[in-house]
Amino acid sequence: MRIALDAMGGDYAPQAVLQGALMAKESFSKENKEIVLIGNQAIIHSHFEKLGADKNAFEIVHTEDVIQMGEHPTKAIGQKPNSSIMLGFKMLKEKSVDAFCSAGNTGAMLVGSLFTIKAIPGIDRPGIAGFIPKEDGRYGILLDVGANADCKPEFLDQFAVLGSLYSKYIFNIENPKVGLMNLGEEEQKGTILTQATHQLLKNNPKINFVGNIEGRDAFNDRADVIVTDGFTGNVVLKLAETFYELMEKRNFMDPFIELFNYAGVGGSPILGVNGNVIIGHGVSTPIAIKNMLNLAVQLTEAGIVDKIKNAYN
Amino acid sequence: MRIALDAMGGDYAPQAVLQGALMAKESFSKENKEIVLIGNQAIIHSHFEKLGADKNAFEIVHTEDVIQMGEHPTKAIGQKPNSSIMLGFKMLKEKSVDAFCSAGNTGAMLVGSLFTIKAIPGIDRPGIAGFIPKEDGRYGILLDVGANADCKPEFLDQFAVLGSLYSKYIFNIENPKVGLMNLGEEEQKGTILTQATHQLLKNNPKINFVGNIEGRDAFNDRADVIVTDGFTGNVVLKLAETFYELMEKRNFMDPFIELFNYAGVGGSPILGVNGNVIIGHGVSTPIAIKNMLNLAVQLTEAGIVDKIKNAYN
Repeated sequence: MRIALDAMGGDYAPQAVLQGALMAKESFSKENKEIVLIGNQAIIHSHFEKLGADKNAFEIVHTEDVIQMGEHPTKAIGQKPNSSIMLGFKMLKEKSVDAFCSAGNTGAMLVGSLFTIKAIPGIDRPGIAGFIPKEDGRYGILLDVGANADCKPEFLDQFAVLGSLYSKYIFNIENPKVGLMNLGEEEQKGTILTQATHQLLKNNPKINFVGNIEGRDAFNDRADVIVTDGFTGNVVLKLAETFYELMEKRNFMDPFIELFNYAGVGGSPILGVNGNVIIGHGVSTPIAIKNMLNLAVQLTEAGIVDKIKNAYN
Repeated sequence: MRIALDAMGGDYAPQAVLQGALMAKESFSKENKEIVLIGNQAIIHSHFEKLGADKNAFEIVHTEDVIQMGEHPTKAIGQKPNSSIMLGFKMLKEKSVDAFCSAGNTGAMLVGSLFTIKAIPGIDRPGIAGFIPKEDGRYGILLDVGANADCKPEFLDQFAVLGSLYSKYIFNIENPKVGLMNLGEEEQKGTILTQATHQLLKNNPKINFVGNIEGRDAFNDRADVIVTDGFTGNVVLKLAETFYELMEKRNFMDPFIELFNYAGVGGSPILGVNGNVIIGHGVSTPIAIKNMLNLAVQLTEAGIVDKIKNAYN
């Protein structure tokens, strides 16, 4: 198994990315898993020297182009075909790697994946999956968390399937419960979007729909998969992150609150594209990078892309 | 000043409501403030007896009709013109009271207000204001938190004005900062709704627009007033309530976290209707009821309805 990692992506790249890669490599050492770094070889080598690490520890795909955090995604991917992000997608498309991870420009990761490996046939709009801690110590899945601000009911109906497959094959939850984020439990409540989506979910034989849930159900066990538009999902995910920061600042910490730390999960997969793609948080620490690589291993081992393809064929 | 209180509204009514009324009365005792209870006189009297309170402590407007928590709002207000909620609005419309508070059926409170005292001319859609704790110990305003699930840009533009007036005249914040809840800071980010709203807010001379904010800014000082559609606002408010419950369960408590307790504020005003109306939380405790009555006093003293009328004339 080969996992490509954008060495230049993230606010603390390349230092934090390389440290994370070294940590992951250590845990991978006796297994058949390789990390391929994409980035400026001279810079990577000099950082490895500073870190006292073997500069030949990883295969490096050299490039001098980087898509910066603030760049316009669509423009950037057109203008920088040799950027670390676009090379990652090229390798993923050619199947020279099994997964691609980057904590770089989120928009470029999303648009890049749609332009290169593309959506799986039958999927209108891939979604970004976020993870929401549950009080029983597990993670629930929230999607979309930002790929699609405006959604049609059909998109949310597909998110429900994508999230269910993820929950089943990665989290090993049989028959995962799907809830629709709404402002009330009754099926006629909500927006035009949630009302129409409710009907689709109710009649979708591929999922176990448990009905509408509310903001207050985010952390309880009413749903394993919470379906929502990318706008609402993004607001919820960022609120949950902020909540963690408020707790951390106060030293209010316990195993459940610790689950709110984005670094524990490492990244958010794009579900519904034709390959394993994970977007890391811009502020990713070495531990977050390590966990993102572990997540890439899980996605690859579970064959989540094929499971999704099978569901839509 | 006379404040009408629905004695029959809320999951713990009438007991909790009457206890709250007694607590408020005590703090009002030397001032010219009266609480008028609306509900079943015999039941109210028997509860006062149980509580060891003077059964003649309050003026009571007797009725045997109650709109239950689960009833369909529009049907219920048509079928029960003598319900405690509809009598409250009748008194408010006739100006025999200055404010009306109920912890009963939220939908009936909203629809009832629109059918009786009606929206202030110039306001397309009144909104429900929620309060969001800020790390510096103040409250920020979030609206709409559920009156309007689907919104047009013009509604959000009006929420910005309503929230600004509230912030200025109730919270005494000069030139309150208005932020638009979004999934990114750049003005082209977000949904069709937020993109169009951004342009209206930018050009609205009645407000101090500071731009888009994100979920992570809910509790910081970037904005005093956060404008959003009623769907997103509802999800955010319920998440914030859930945070509080999670903290309470763990005894993770400090003055800031304590601000998340809905009971401290007591209720959510409907802004943009032609009278002071406050909706209490269904699970309102006596302290929450007391604080809702205090909030009613504040709204009345600030003359918020007239301030809004002036802004739209």
